[in-house]
Amino acid sequence: MIGVALRKTQGNLNFILYFCSVFYFKTNTFSTMSLITVGTMAFDAIETPFGKVDKIVGGSATYVAYAACNFITPVQQISIVGYDFPEAEMKSLQSRGVQTEGVERVKDKKSFFWSGKYHIDMNTRDTLVTDLNVLEDFNPIVPDSYQGSEFLLLGNLMPKLQLSVINQLKKRPRLIVMDTMNFWMDVALDDLKVVLKKVDVLLVNDGEARQLSGEVSLVKAAKAIMAMGPKYLIIKKGEHGALLFHENSVFFAPALPLEEVFDPTGAGDTFAGGFTGYLAKVKDISFDSMKTAIIVGSAMASFCVEKFGPERLKEINADDITARINEFVQLVNFDIDLIG
Amino acid sequence: MIGVALRKTQGNLNFILYFCSVFYFKTNTFSTMSLITVGTMAFDAIETPFGKVDKIVGGSATYVAYAACNFITPVQQISIVGYDFPEAEMKSLQSRGVQTEGVERVKDKKSFFWSGKYHIDMNTRDTLVTDLNVLEDFNPIVPDSYQGSEFLLLGNLMPKLQLSVINQLKKRPRLIVMDTMNFWMDVALDDLKVVLKKVDVLLVNDGEARQLSGEVSLVKAAKAIMAMGPKYLIIKKGEHGALLFHENSVFFAPALPLEEVFDPTGAGDTFAGGFTGYLAKVKDISFDSMKTAIIVGSAMASFCVEKFGPERLKEINADDITARINEFVQLVNFDIDLIG
Repeated sequence: MIGVALRKTQGNLNFILYFCSVFYFKTNTFSTMSLITVGTMAFDAIETPFGKVDKIVGGSATYVAYAACNFITPVQQISIVGYDFPEAEMKSLQSRGVQTEGVERVKDKKSFFWSGKYHIDMNTRDTLVTDLNVLEDFNPIVPDSYQGSEFLLLGNLMPKLQLSVINQLKKRPRLIVMDTMNFWMDVALDDLKVVLKKVDVLLVNDGEARQLSGEVSLVKAAKAIMAMGPKYLIIKKGEHGALLFHENSVFFAPALPLEEVFDPTGAGDTFAGGFTGYLAKVKDISFDSMKTAIIVGSAMASFCVEKFGPERLKEINADDITARINEFVQLVNFDIDLIG
Repeated sequence: MIGVALRKTQGNLNFILYFCSVFYFKTNTFSTMSLITVGTMAFDAIETPFGKVDKIVGGSATYVAYAACNFITPVQQISIVGYDFPEAEMKSLQSRGVQTEGVERVKDKKSFFWSGKYHIDMNTRDTLVTDLNVLEDFNPIVPDSYQGSEFLLLGNLMPKLQLSVINQLKKRPRLIVMDTMNFWMDVALDDLKVVLKKVDVLLVNDGEARQLSGEVSLVKAAKAIMAMGPKYLIIKKGEHGALLFHENSVFFAPALPLEEVFDPTGAGDTFAGGFTGYLAKVKDISFDSMKTAIIVGSAMASFCVEKFGPERLKEINADDITARINEFVQLVNFDIDLIG
């Protein structure tokens, strides 16, 4: 793929070379930075046009961790599970540099359970079951060992709990990224707006951006939402890519055209984990850096949807990620040198 | 804008410089190439969430001509109008280098009339009225003076008439681009498939690609459609951009995020005119050249939707187009040099 990159523009060539170096030097940089993330660890039952699974591991924090640990470790996990959550899954995460000291295990309750069914277009889904279980009394505690982290990713979770994590941090992180969903806009909008004032980057999908802002035009919606607090806004459009807004600038990252989207569950969390993990990795939170981070997040999400649950994320390695990133470079790069 | 471009990758810098030269040298290259286009010239009545017009000039060939003449002249128009079509509009086109010898004027019949209403999302519309009028007995004749053109753009029209134009050309053009729509798939699919075997590039939207191929996945749809004849396929996704497929390669061009899409009518024809006009201009029909042509087509379409009908296309000049193209470069260009 490097060979291909050589024929492309200098920026892309640097991109490929740099990206490879990310992994080449990974072992040397493991200990230089950490990323705190809070979210759910759960069981999902999923039905798509391509198949059905009754009970697999899921949850926003699970997907975030499997994505982010490719770029930054330790990933410092804050979540809650029940007695039924598999120890093997914890070990699988720990073996990838995910710290689980902040994951509470409740002895007498079941883990959070979500069940959903996707429509044929895969862009819409119906929630069939939501059993909160342990989530009902989740009170996230930030372990002392997590204090001092420069990056915080608030995974999709009750806004009150996202706020609680922010308030427990003795030093304000350099970058706070917040993911959320329409459900919280329906049932906890006031809490959500309080958290919005305290975060740097918000991630929502296009429908949620329209709901939160009351604007149909995504450009107008972005202006309205950034006025609520976040300096950066990412609007995810599923198979139609993602937009990054900051002040008067906008950047667009496409989604990779895939023959089959097998299971979109967790794609948004994976995107968030890849995006924030990459920023923590390069320690650069400029707009230009975020452009690259969105391409990285999109690449990670494109793996996620290839199999049920986080399975595909467990299989991939640095070479797979580098190759996938290069597919995005090919997809959007227009080389004009041949013309004129 | 050049100043901005200088900070970008070499390819983009060349792009900007080259693009400016397109206009700088335009007068020198007027006579070197021509583009034949066939389609409707009509009246439209349009209602959008932003307003309503009762009777304005429209038609696929009208939009194609106003877009293409910015890049290549003469644009050799083949169409049919009634006694009611305004002479001033003909003069306006002629003044831009559009030849109308191939435009038949019927003394005792009205021009083709279409009326439609757009839904709030602007991506879907209802056709209210379709009065074929002169279109009922349209039998396009290619004037001798048009023979020898190297580029042919078959605007959205009955497939039988598109085929008739191809068959009248004594020398097969270097590139034949075909636009069509779901209506012809519904009422003239067999004719459509005959034309498909004779064209190089097909333009359809995502819904039409799925209808024509029977595939939900656009990647699978593209493979199926290219097997029907066209070596290149462009799938337009409206506000979600456009995809270019060729063999196993794919390129994505975003749509410019606009605060308001005022009237989408003619955007597809304008895209086709900008795309084909640019290729005729640079005389390069490679995949890489088509990537740039799609960005150009997208830029022209982004002007079209800013006002009702072709009004905005009449106002813009070379500087406006260059500036708009650069907005696309900014939108998709990720510069990695700052990182690592």
